[in-house]
Amino acid sequence: MLETITSTKNPKVKYALCLRDRRDRDESGEFLIEGYRELYRATHAHVAIDTLFTCEEHFLGTNEPALIAAIQKSGAKIYSCAPQVFDKLSYRDRPDGLLAIAKQMKTALNDLADRLAAKKHPPLLVVAEAIEKPGNLGTILRSSDAVAADGVIVCDRCTDIYNPNVVRASTGTLFTLPVIEADGESTLKWLQERNIAIAAATPHAEAEFTAVDLTGPLAIVVGTEQLGLSDLWMRHATLKMRIPMLGVADSLNVATATTLLLYEALRQRR
Amino acid sequence: MLETITSTKNPKVKYALCLRDRRDRDESGEFLIEGYRELYRATHAHVAIDTLFTCEEHFLGTNEPALIAAIQKSGAKIYSCAPQVFDKLSYRDRPDGLLAIAKQMKTALNDLADRLAAKKHPPLLVVAEAIEKPGNLGTILRSSDAVAADGVIVCDRCTDIYNPNVVRASTGTLFTLPVIEADGESTLKWLQERNIAIAAATPHAEAEFTAVDLTGPLAIVVGTEQLGLSDLWMRHATLKMRIPMLGVADSLNVATATTLLLYEALRQRR
Repeated sequence: MLETITSTKNPKVKYALCLRDRRDRDESGEFLIEGYRELYRATHAHVAIDTLFTCEEHFLGTNEPALIAAIQKSGAKIYSCAPQVFDKLSYRDRPDGLLAIAKQMKTALNDLADRLAAKKHPPLLVVAEAIEKPGNLGTILRSSDAVAADGVIVCDRCTDIYNPNVVRASTGTLFTLPVIEADGESTLKWLQERNIAIAAATPHAEAEFTAVDLTGPLAIVVGTEQLGLSDLWMRHATLKMRIPMLGVADSLNVATATTLLLYEALRQRR
Repeated sequence: MLETITSTKNPKVKYALCLRDRRDRDESGEFLIEGYRELYRATHAHVAIDTLFTCEEHFLGTNEPALIAAIQKSGAKIYSCAPQVFDKLSYRDRPDGLLAIAKQMKTALNDLADRLAAKKHPPLLVVAEAIEKPGNLGTILRSSDAVAADGVIVCDRCTDIYNPNVVRASTGTLFTLPVIEADGESTLKWLQERNIAIAAATPHAEAEFTAVDLTGPLAIVVGTEQLGLSDLWMRHATLKMRIPMLGVADSLNVATATTLLLYEALRQRR
């Protein structure tokens, strides 16, 4: 028999709502995961789920009980919520009746190093510097997963990777891909020590991105929406390339530009 | 001497706030344009601006007076707002002190036909069906501008193209690119009459998008975030192609996928 929550004043509910704030996420080391697909991917990636809130009235399919059972077996506490309670917890337009509190994963550059050492192909990484919009960061993760990139390093973060909208826009690929938060200087040094080329897209480059050799060990570096890459990365970029811009606008959305570069690397590598 | 607005209860301010709602936009035939870059592009594209709200305290540069003068010359009424009034009007994180009410452009398929007839190259169009998120629709416009596509047809709209977040995510390319709202059946017929190939991305296609000939007259058709393309378009697609998905996720963000296809068409055409 599941414990049922009928009040939005329940302390577990209040705690979950706090985790929408970055400060509370940073302090607690926990974060929210909402949605069947996201939780399915988190569970398969062995993310430690502490608490699961469910709301049967919102379930969309028939697979929910199996997922809930798996999460319960992993040690999580499960609560059934009245719809008005779940709707308060949910940050989606269409809640699907599943929302969890989980422990942050805290992958480090060294973990990534071990992973790269085990691979046979030249590494393909993304360095995302100071991205502001969670939707953009999530989309970068989703596209990095799509090309089977080896990892994403989030440098000098503006938006933390545990922001609920990063989880959502990533469709849970945050859990299936190595994602590391690090500072710019350490990341640069780490890449240089491993002879990983630093590729930057800039309107001032001569070569178009489809004409640059992207088949070697490569980190595609992209910068903040407003200002682009910082001087640190522009100065140390070993490959510079241009995305053709034939209209009036002078740049693409950052997640979109990252995806173009990733798929061009993939096209050249196959 | 500009008229100054110091109260958020001013009727002009109230009217502008109404235009955040789609129903009020539909009824009035007007919409909001915020931001220097967006207004600059709208002005150059001869979008009819009715009212301009300014707030000098928020100006970021030195070019604002010239733009305001140009907008005033075009016949718009200009109001200077106290910061607390402008902050209420603004829907941005960082207001830059310029927000206008403008007339909707209402471009039709026939206008697009005239435009295509005047071009020498095979047309490249985007058909965006029932996109829900304004940010995605705006990004599709921004990328379509970037490859100098001949137009975007928004079919069976969920989000209207005059949604403030479409304007913002498009960075004003909504004004520089022909953007048409139409129903799916009319659009399909219009494309078929002109022998424009209908290209759909689907995970079930054999060929990868980089292996399909995209150099002829082409409409890239993309569907809603949740469900993808409707049966109407899947049935009538003349080119089907697949974007490789090598990770756990089974699809890309819709704006991202559209951009990949557009740039692949561009790569092949150059």
